[in-house]
Amino acid sequence: MHNKLEQALTNVKTIHPLVHHLTNYVTVNDCANITLAIGGSPVMADAIEEVTDMASVANSVVINMGTLNERTVASMILAGKAANGKGTPVIFDPVGVGASVFRNEMALKILKEVKCSVIRGNASEIRFLVERHAATKGVDVASADTNIDVETLVKEGAKKLGCIVACTGAVDYISDGKQLVKIYNGHAMLSSITGTGCMCTSLIGTYCGANTDIFIATCAALLSMGMAGENAYTSSGHLGLGHYHMAIIDEISKLDATSLLERARYETNNS
Amino acid sequence: MHNKLEQALTNVKTIHPLVHHLTNYVTVNDCANITLAIGGSPVMADAIEEVTDMASVANSVVINMGTLNERTVASMILAGKAANGKGTPVIFDPVGVGASVFRNEMALKILKEVKCSVIRGNASEIRFLVERHAATKGVDVASADTNIDVETLVKEGAKKLGCIVACTGAVDYISDGKQLVKIYNGHAMLSSITGTGCMCTSLIGTYCGANTDIFIATCAALLSMGMAGENAYTSSGHLGLGHYHMAIIDEISKLDATSLLERARYETNNS
Amino acid sequence: MHNKLEQALTNVKTIHPLVHHLTNYVTVNDCANITLAIGGSPVMADAIEEVTDMASVANSVVINMGTLNERTVASMILAGKAANGKGTPVIFDPVGVGASVFRNEMALKILKEVKCSVIRGNASEIRFLVERHAATKGVDVASADTNIDVETLVKEGAKKLGCIVACTGAVDYISDGKQLVKIYNGHAMLSSITGTGCMCTSLIGTYCGANTDIFIATCAALLSMGMAGENAYTSSGHLGLGHYHMAIIDEISKLDATSLLERARYETNNS
Repeated sequence: MHNKLEQALTNVKTIHPLVHHLTNYVTVNDCANITLAIGGSPVMADAIEEVTDMASVANSVVINMGTLNERTVASMILAGKAANGKGTPVIFDPVGVGASVFRNEMALKILKEVKCSVIRGNASEIRFLVERHAATKGVDVASADTNIDVETLVKEGAKKLGCIVACTGAVDYISDGKQLVKIYNGHAMLSSITGTGCMCTSLIGTYCGANTDIFIATCAALLSMGMAGENAYTSSGHLGLGHYHMAIIDEISKLDATSLLERARYETNNS
Repeated sequence: MHNKLEQALTNVKTIHPLVHHLTNYVTVNDCANITLAIGGSPVMADAIEEVTDMASVANSVVINMGTLNERTVASMILAGKAANGKGTPVIFDPVGVGASVFRNEMALKILKEVKCSVIRGNASEIRFLVERHAATKGVDVASADTNIDVETLVKEGAKKLGCIVACTGAVDYISDGKQLVKIYNGHAMLSSITGTGCMCTSLIGTYCGANTDIFIATCAALLSMGMAGENAYTSSGHLGLGHYHMAIIDEISKLDATSLLERARYETNNS
Repeated sequence: MHNKLEQALTNVKTIHPLVHHLTNYVTVNDCANITLAIGGSPVMADAIEEVTDMASVANSVVINMGTLNERTVASMILAGKAANGKGTPVIFDPVGVGASVFRNEMALKILKEVKCSVIRGNASEIRFLVERHAATKGVDVASADTNIDVETLVKEGAKKLGCIVACTGAVDYISDGKQLVKIYNGHAMLSSITGTGCMCTSLIGTYCGANTDIFIATCAALLSMGMAGENAYTSSGHLGLGHYHMAIIDEISKLDATSLLERARYETNNS
C-alpha cells in the first residue's frame, strides 16, 4: 500500500485535478485553499444553470451540504448526475445529517439521485446514513455516538451504500465493504477548527480527481490531513487556534511523498 | 462581579453550548472559529425548512443580518420564534442598519417578531434602533455618531427595546436599563479587521448559551474580545493585519478565567 | 507617473473610500480585509432591495461574479446602474468567464447593462470578453491561453470594451486603449492562494474610490498587490501557503507610499 500512497500524491501534483465544489459558505475558503495547497485546482459554483457545464469538465465533484438550501440541493443533484454521466467521482459530505428533518431528507435524496464514489462524515453522520437513525446535535458527533463500533459501521455502511465510506475522528476508518483501513495520524486540536471535516472531503476530492484507485486516494487524503494536523501542532499549536488553522494549510502545502510515508500510521484489515 | 465573570467563562468551558447562527457569508468562518475557540459548538444553518429544528435544540441563537436577503430574514424570524418558544436566548446583531431602507425595515421586522435577549451593535446601529434615525454609511460608525452620548443611548435603548443593549467601540457600554457597565479593554486595531463586531456577537451568543445571567454573560463576552484584541496586538500587531486577525482567535483560545480577571478593566454604574 | 502613484495611495489613506462589493462567498472575507488593510471601508451587500441605496453612497462598486446566480446577477446590474447614475466607478471581475454558457451570458449581460470603468481578469477571462471565445476551464487560466499576446489583447480589449482593461498574471498588463503599463512585481506563490485575483479587484476598487485618475489608480492597486506578494514571500513563504495567505494582508496593511515607489518595477508604453 505504501507505494500506492506515494503514487497517489505524485498523481495529484502532476495532474492538478479540477475539483468542482458545491459547498457551504462557512468553510469554502479553506476548502479552496487546501485543494490548491495539495496541488489541485478548485472551482466553486452552484448556479443551477451552470453546474452541468462545470461538473462535466471537472476531474471530481465534491458535494458538501453544510449550509444547504432548496436551491443548492437542486444544483448538487444536477452536478452529481452530470458527473455520473461522465464517470467522474462524486464525493459526498453529509454535514450535520441527523440534525434536522430537512437535512435528513435532502441527504437521502442526494444519495438516491446521485451515485457517490466516497462518503465522508463523522460517526453520527455516517450512522444516520447507514441506520437512518438520528442522534446528531448540530454538526458535531453526538455524545450517544462516541462509543459506537465504527469499524463495523463503515464496513457494513460501505456494503449497504455501495461506495467507499470514510468515517473521521480520533481514528479514521475507511472501507469499501471488503478492505478496511484505520488511520491513526491526526491531532485532537483539529476538532477545534471549523471545517477540518470539510477540508478532509476536499482533499479526498482532489486525490480522487487524480487517481483511478479511489480507495487508495481516500486513504492518502486522510493520511495527508492527519499528518498536517500533527505537523501544524508541532509548528504552531502553542500559539493558539488561529495560527494552528493557518498551519494546517501550511503543512498540506509542504507535504511530500517521502514525509507522507515516513510518518504514516495506519493498519489494514482485509476480509 | 469578578466572581460572576469567572464563573461565566467556566460555564462555557463546561457546557460547550450549541450556538445556532443565522449570519452573513463575509465573517461566518471567523464567527464559527471564535465560538469554538472560547469553548462553544457553532452550527450555521439558514434554510427555512430546518431552522426551527436547529434553533429548538440550540443553547442560544445568533441573528446577524450582515448580508441579509428576503430568504434569510424569513429564516431568522422563524428561528427566533422557535428560540423564544423554548426560552432560549436570542442575540441580534443589526449589522449596517441605517444604511438602506430595506435593512432598516428588516431590522425593525425582526425586532417586532422576535424577542431578543441582547442586541449588539456599533453606535450608529444602536442609535438607529433606538431613535429610528439613520446616519449609517456602509457598516461602520457614521462620523455624525462619533460624539453621541453612548451611555445614555444604551441605557435608554435597553429600556425602550426591553433587552440588554451592548454598544461596542473604543469603550464598550452594556446596559439592561438599570445596570451599566463600561469596558475599557480592547485595541484600535480591532476596527481594521472585518467581522470583529460579528465575532463579539458570537461570543455573546456562546456565553449566553452557557449562563443564566445574560447580563454577566454579555459583559464577559466583550471583556474576552477586548482582552484578545490587546493580547493579539502584543503578540502579532507588528506583523500586520493578517497575523493580527489570526491572533485574535489564538488569544480567545488561550483565555482562561484567571487572566480574564487579572487584566479586566471595567466600571459599573448602577442606578 | 511615480508622483501620481504616490498620491494615489495617499488619497486612499486620507479618503477611506466606501467600496460596495457584490462578490462571491469564497473569497469575500479576504476582499473585505484587503480593502480595510489598504485604507478603505468595505460594505458587502447583494439584496436586490438595498443595492441601489448602498451603491448610491459608495465611492466605488466592485462586481465580482465568482459564485454568481440569477438573484445576485440581477443585484449586480441594479447596483451597477445606480453607480453609473452617480458617476461612481464600477470595477468588474468576470471570474471564470468562459467556463460555462451561463457565466458567459451573464458576463455579457452585465457588460451590456453596466458601464464599467475597469475590468480585471486573467488572460482567459479577458480573452473571452474581447474575442467571445472560450478556453477557460474552471477559474484558472486555460493552458491554451498561456502563450497569447496579452499586450495586444488588453490594448485592443480596452478600445473594444471602452474601459480600462487589467490582465493579471506573471506580468500584469493595464491599458486604456492608448497607454499601456506592464507591472513586473509579484510572486508565483500568489497563484496558489484562492482569491488573489479577487483581492486585486478589491484593491482596484479601493484605489478608484479615492482617485479621479482611474488608470493610475488601477496601476497603483496592481503594484500594491505585486509588492505585497513579494514581501509576503520574504516574510512567510518558507512557512507554507497558510502563513503566506495571511502575510499578503499583513504586507498590504504595512505598505506606504515610499516603499511602494522604491521597489515598483513597471514599464510604460504609450502610443
